[in-house]
Amino acid sequence: MSEQQRRDLDEMLRHAPLDVGGDVAEARVVFHEMMTSVPLPPDVTAVPGQLGGVPVVTVDTPGSDPSRVLLYFHGGAYAIGSAADATSLAADVSRRSGARAVCVDYRLAPEHPFPAAVDDAVAAYGALLDQGVPGARIALVGESAGGGLAVATLVAVRDSGMSQPSSAAVFSPWADLTVSGASATSKAAVDPALTPRALRTRARDYLGATPGAEPLASPVFADLTGLPPLLVQVGSHEILLDDAVRLASRAAAADVHVQLQVWPQVPHVFQAFAVMLDEADEALQSAAAFTRAHWAAAESASYASLPS
Amino acid sequence: MSEQQRRDLDEMLRHAPLDVGGDVAEARVVFHEMMTSVPLPPDVTAVPGQLGGVPVVTVDTPGSDPSRVLLYFHGGAYAIGSAADATSLAADVSRRSGARAVCVDYRLAPEHPFPAAVDDAVAAYGALLDQGVPGARIALVGESAGGGLAVATLVAVRDSGMSQPSSAAVFSPWADLTVSGASATSKAAVDPALTPRALRTRARDYLGATPGAEPLASPVFADLTGLPPLLVQVGSHEILLDDAVRLASRAAAADVHVQLQVWPQVPHVFQAFAVMLDEADEALQSAAAFTRAHWAAAESASYASLPS
Repeated sequence: MSEQQRRDLDEMLRHAPLDVGGDVAEARVVFHEMMTSVPLPPDVTAVPGQLGGVPVVTVDTPGSDPSRVLLYFHGGAYAIGSAADATSLAADVSRRSGARAVCVDYRLAPEHPFPAAVDDAVAAYGALLDQGVPGARIALVGESAGGGLAVATLVAVRDSGMSQPSSAAVFSPWADLTVSGASATSKAAVDPALTPRALRTRARDYLGATPGAEPLASPVFADLTGLPPLLVQVGSHEILLDDAVRLASRAAAADVHVQLQVWPQVPHVFQAFAVMLDEADEALQSAAAFTRAHWAAAESASYASLPS
Repeated sequence: MSEQQRRDLDEMLRHAPLDVGGDVAEARVVFHEMMTSVPLPPDVTAVPGQLGGVPVVTVDTPGSDPSRVLLYFHGGAYAIGSAADATSLAADVSRRSGARAVCVDYRLAPEHPFPAAVDDAVAAYGALLDQGVPGARIALVGESAGGGLAVATLVAVRDSGMSQPSSAAVFSPWADLTVSGASATSKAAVDPALTPRALRTRARDYLGATPGAEPLASPVFADLTGLPPLLVQVGSHEILLDDAVRLASRAAAADVHVQLQVWPQVPHVFQAFAVMLDEADEALQSAAAFTRAHWAAAESASYASLPS
């Protein structure tokens, strides 16, 4: 929790070459270079494949249990990023949770606007169930747009009547594509990574003709009743702070078991910087503990409900 | 987490004889009988005394470290309750945290309106410091009005320039004496313990001529900048749900390290019912882990900042 660590990370992000709101093709290349600049640890395996017709990367770490699955949704404002780009952070979550991570390459905007991402996420989840992995052994994880997508997926899964996952953990979720939270303004100066302008550009790409308040695009506006336990982590130096707070508030009002964890003065998806930031390490440990606890609870509940 | 446990507790509370908004003298007697109906476990010691001129009850459990202090603020809408009434729950927190609990008998309304309670809380805290207990070894804990009072105490301590406690954990805090949260209405039917009418009656008693939006009476309206780590726990069957949510939201906006934990379909200060409710056990374990973690962090930071 050193102030120096936070300052170094802030400085690094302010000088990063990524323009989230800029040209999509260029942003994808820069993002990929940023996310894969550090080689994966040699003990991580990352195998491309597909799940329900959706490309995925299956990530295993030593000792990870392949029968417990973290279905992982990468960030990138619905227009940038990939399963491959998320492998490093997904591997870290896999290692701490002792479970396999499956990173979903959902289709991106502007080529594939809403609801393509949600359709792909639900298809991948449904295929896991079809392969015999029970919902009780699946947890959703997502960062940024992938966090919003994880919650949208929970809503869609609930509405479809499919078996639900045991929990979901979302890091700095982008859950309001109208970009109407107070923090969009109040935190703009201290957010080293995102601007409201960039988010509005990407929201237009993803939404197309869909209204920004569409619940499956902006789950802060969704009815969250009946969702499984939800962990929301966010930094206080984020224009997306209020997306996290409103998601937790909305979930609480709907009787969802929800936890909101706010770390002061850290940026968007600070969990990705565990090598240099104590808060990231602490947040990832907390997310892994949450996920494991709800696997245990859901598995024991499923066992108890089996016919005797 | 059984539905039966939640139903039993709801039923019990709906038939409890306590009228929080009724005659104060009678409510105090009924509340005392309710809170002390189960004898304290024989291994708990509860010793009356005083701290900074304020009556307290010092609670120890086997192995609890008397050099780590939970300064505990009881509930009762600022008009009801006492340190003695809180001994049972304080002892449970002491046992799980491995620390001494000191329950504060702050003065009650209507005899002693705002700011008497805050003055007493700050006096007791200051006296602990004067006795040589460093802030790094103190954590504040409070339930209901005592939760609001704990946060008001943090604000007053910050403003006074005194050394701050390591953390605060609040259970179902009453943090808005204007009773203006949306949950005051939306959760009224499912809250088995409190009504907006009762809270408004007690708010008038406590506030006297002070406006309800006074930050030290209603810390949802306070500037929370610079406060130590804060844990807020609440049930979703509470008219006070939004007090918890807004407190967390306000703390997050002010760069406070804050956690909000919402348990579905449990009532006001459900932590008091650990004997019959799994959620209470889980919440108390989580609060104890939080408190211990921040003691460890604050003590190591204090040690690091000592002159070498």
